[in-house]
Amino acid sequence: MGSLNTEDVLENNTAFGVTNPLEPEEFRKQGHMIIDFLADYYRDIEKYPVRSQVEPGYLRKRLPETAPYNPESMESILEDVQNEIIPGITHWQSPNYFAYFPSSGSIAGFLGEMLSTGFNVVGFNWMSSPAATELESIVMDWLGKMLKLPKSFLFSGNGGGVLQGTTCEAILCTLTAARDRMLNKIGRENIGRLVVYGSDQTHCALQKAAQIAGINPKNFRAVQTFKAHSFGLSADTLRKVIRSDVEAGLIPLFVCPTVGTTSSTAVDPIGPICEVAKEYEMWVHVDAAYAGSACICPEFRHFIDGVENADSFSLNAHKWFFTTLDCCCLWVKDPSALVKALSTNPEYLRNKATESKQVVDYKDWQIALSRRFRSMKLWMVLRNYGVANLRNFLRSHVKMAKQFEGLIASDNRFEICVPRTFAMVCFRLLPPKSTRDNRVREEDGLFVSGVHDHENNINEDDHLLVVANKLNQIYLEKVNATGSLYMTHAVVGGIYMIRFAVGSTLTEERHITHAWKVLQEHADTILGTFNLADFSC
Amino acid sequence: MGSLNTEDVLENNTAFGVTNPLEPEEFRKQGHMIIDFLADYYRDIEKYPVRSQVEPGYLRKRLPETAPYNPESMESILEDVQNEIIPGITHWQSPNYFAYFPSSGSIAGFLGEMLSTGFNVVGFNWMSSPAATELESIVMDWLGKMLKLPKSFLFSGNGGGVLQGTTCEAILCTLTAARDRMLNKIGRENIGRLVVYGSDQTHCALQKAAQIAGINPKNFRAVQTFKAHSFGLSADTLRKVIRSDVEAGLIPLFVCPTVGTTSSTAVDPIGPICEVAKEYEMWVHVDAAYAGSACICPEFRHFIDGVENADSFSLNAHKWFFTTLDCCCLWVKDPSALVKALSTNPEYLRNKATESKQVVDYKDWQIALSRRFRSMKLWMVLRNYGVANLRNFLRSHVKMAKQFEGLIASDNRFEICVPRTFAMVCFRLLPPKSTRDNRVREEDGLFVSGVHDHENNINEDDHLLVVANKLNQIYLEKVNATGSLYMTHAVVGGIYMIRFAVGSTLTEERHITHAWKVLQEHADTILGTFNLADFSC
Repeated sequence: MGSLNTEDVLENNTAFGVTNPLEPEEFRKQGHMIIDFLADYYRDIEKYPVRSQVEPGYLRKRLPETAPYNPESMESILEDVQNEIIPGITHWQSPNYFAYFPSSGSIAGFLGEMLSTGFNVVGFNWMSSPAATELESIVMDWLGKMLKLPKSFLFSGNGGGVLQGTTCEAILCTLTAARDRMLNKIGRENIGRLVVYGSDQTHCALQKAAQIAGINPKNFRAVQTFKAHSFGLSADTLRKVIRSDVEAGLIPLFVCPTVGTTSSTAVDPIGPICEVAKEYEMWVHVDAAYAGSACICPEFRHFIDGVENADSFSLNAHKWFFTTLDCCCLWVKDPSALVKALSTNPEYLRNKATESKQVVDYKDWQIALSRRFRSMKLWMVLRNYGVANLRNFLRSHVKMAKQFEGLIASDNRFEICVPRTFAMVCFRLLPPKSTRDNRVREEDGLFVSGVHDHENNINEDDHLLVVANKLNQIYLEKVNATGSLYMTHAVVGGIYMIRFAVGSTLTEERHITHAWKVLQEHADTILGTFNLADFSC
Repeated sequence: MGSLNTEDVLENNTAFGVTNPLEPEEFRKQGHMIIDFLADYYRDIEKYPVRSQVEPGYLRKRLPETAPYNPESMESILEDVQNEIIPGITHWQSPNYFAYFPSSGSIAGFLGEMLSTGFNVVGFNWMSSPAATELESIVMDWLGKMLKLPKSFLFSGNGGGVLQGTTCEAILCTLTAARDRMLNKIGRENIGRLVVYGSDQTHCALQKAAQIAGINPKNFRAVQTFKAHSFGLSADTLRKVIRSDVEAGLIPLFVCPTVGTTSSTAVDPIGPICEVAKEYEMWVHVDAAYAGSACICPEFRHFIDGVENADSFSLNAHKWFFTTLDCCCLWVKDPSALVKALSTNPEYLRNKATESKQVVDYKDWQIALSRRFRSMKLWMVLRNYGVANLRNFLRSHVKMAKQFEGLIASDNRFEICVPRTFAMVCFRLLPPKSTRDNRVREEDGLFVSGVHDHENNINEDDHLLVVANKLNQIYLEKVNATGSLYMTHAVVGGIYMIRFAVGSTLTEERHITHAWKVLQEHADTILGTFNLADFSC
């Protein structure tokens, strides 16, 4: 392998005569090679440990310190991908992947990304590649209709949709629009008085967006949620917090209810929250990053009831809609608010189409100027599967989650921690019954019910909770270390829960059964050798 | 084509029995199909008009109003790509594409993107896929070394690099870091006093980032540039503007010199600007989005001299470094400033590796939490071409630009408007000599020299300038309308210039000759029928 140190005087002669780096027949040859590489990867994916087992710094030990001076063949690079990279990959596409939220790829999504990469257009405005803009507007209307979003979110109703990279960007853009709309009314000097609201279950994207947009960190409210409301944001609590802020001279700006929180897929009540927001002329952004996809099924649509009163709505098609990362779908009722906050019109981008005002220039709907042709993959997913199959793919994940929930419920060593709403099950292993009996004499069974609380005042014996949390932390690590499945955790209401998120495209019922088998085996081991002292602090 | 309206009771039966959307052998089959589609596209690319010739709204007329209810075959979708989408694409990969800046794809870049899409990992932190993080740190060090960045920008020197989507994001992140570093010192209530500096040639990304980060729009300074400095930002002028702001009670925060401005590839003097910034403890971000790539060649490296005193540096590998969109390389000296401003640590992402502090969690170096495995494509570009070829690919573009410059200079109907520095030539067509003679009696030849000014005070006959500008606007539109090449414009120092940016990967010398032929033919026509009245206001 060459290195910078081997530079020599031949440099000026090296490139001439070299094939053009985009030569079509070479492209064809190498393209086919990579397709086979990836097809084999999917075929063999169950052979790899789901969660990578490498140690920090593993790769620096295996790769040279500088880029090669001379070219290396694609064959040798692919060998290194196989031997050096794949061991460091956590296999999000594995059917045994149940961690975080899914990153559900599909053939259609992959092919769409390939076309988009192949065309490699930079679609900042309509002019730079009309199809990139127009297809995006069209598929956003398609998906909006599938979700039965009110017309006010569609282009036909003077709203409109845009594809962002991630929810973080979608929230930052809408928050910036809301901020500037408010500051233009009350004066820029009031930026320090603006307040942003979420719940203690809201994704950290909201807090980050508020930080970036210059909201005083002291004015970010993570309103407390309670088990009594399944950890959804209570509109009444929100109103109380807002009132107290207003009394203190602050200005409520933005509230972000979630449909399917990251920790436990809780659903905030959009309708009641919008009513509160209306009183204070706040911007409501609905973050349905995970669960929004499910709302294309009639039986789940009610979870976004009330969205008609929100200002914006987003979901991540790259999470649970078969469209590879990244693809966040954002709809807004008032695109002009985005454009006022985010537009720039340098001379070098001036063009007739923009001046005609007949076109959308998406650069003014997002943070970046440059943008990929993301609608291609979403269009191909929608067409190649059709609404019917998409609904049923999602339903099959929900069905498998239900199946898993049934298995957990059938074994009294385990507990379902919060009600399952979509395709994620939150559960935990319980310390042996003898321990519980010893610790909670008068209220036997209390522990089994998880948290015996009134509005989150945890009565569960503190020590027992510590024991249970530590037990589950160790249990989860042991299961993940096998490499045969991968799950992650959350802590909600003080309880350490294991999250089992079904949604990897390749997952079938047999993988659920397999996961349950591994979980039972490890429960046997850890409970069989259980010693209270090991889990106490 | 089905539609939502055809929904029927069979829905629940449709998906069962359908192939899994990521079935490996189906992936293989369809993947090969797309590779052939794209290889044919590259083979035939010169047949398409470079700039799309569709009218606004063309696609909505051709596509249905709703997503199909039933699946459609990939073959029929590809037929639609060919017939409906390609006509709406502006072919950035065409060898006859000279507009904006290049979006230089390559086979290695494409294959890297395919692997990254195929693995489809969400690399927010080290834990979520160690290889994605580690490879990124490694290639950023590789590329940093190729650019001879000081060690303080590399991981080995306690700095480090990160791949962002675009320069807009890179600037927003560094500006947010700078803002919070300053506000933590002087108090959050001073946000309204912070000032951000660029030149009137700085990319609009800076202004947009300042808007988003909550900088008062009144405190954004686009410092005037002058022809005498080739439209580079003068450190002396900058100092004067800063002094005046400081006297007015404002606080200088951030300055962004550019290496290769969008309008004319001007280079701001980094060293002198850093000296000014140092006096005021400002953050200096060097935006080398376009020209940074060229600095891997020793003969261009001097354009970033002084970078050792900057705080951060970025270039877009997706512009002129054969790495498909998007791929912005950002290096910072003090990653902790980014992390302090951008980090969030929710429980559901807690993990041992993060707590060990032995790993980089890139989510805290950027806006979004989720992130694609972008380093894969950059790694493959660096390895498959090697430093030697990469340098020579860039040199071949510069050489072709020189060739084009020579052609323009050989024809006295044309004028080079600003000195060529990299691979872009800014030129214009001159009104017929007779017109010039009539208008500028005493100073014949003045017009030919472009702008006869002292520090941008344009003395050129105002009417003549209007005529020349309009002539070039019409001329450019006529040339672009042929579809045989595509260029865009800029207005610098009041002069409408045509930008000829060489850098499309497939461009060879014959395309330059061809472009010149088309330009000459259209010059013949437009000057042959020239009537002053047509171009006057």
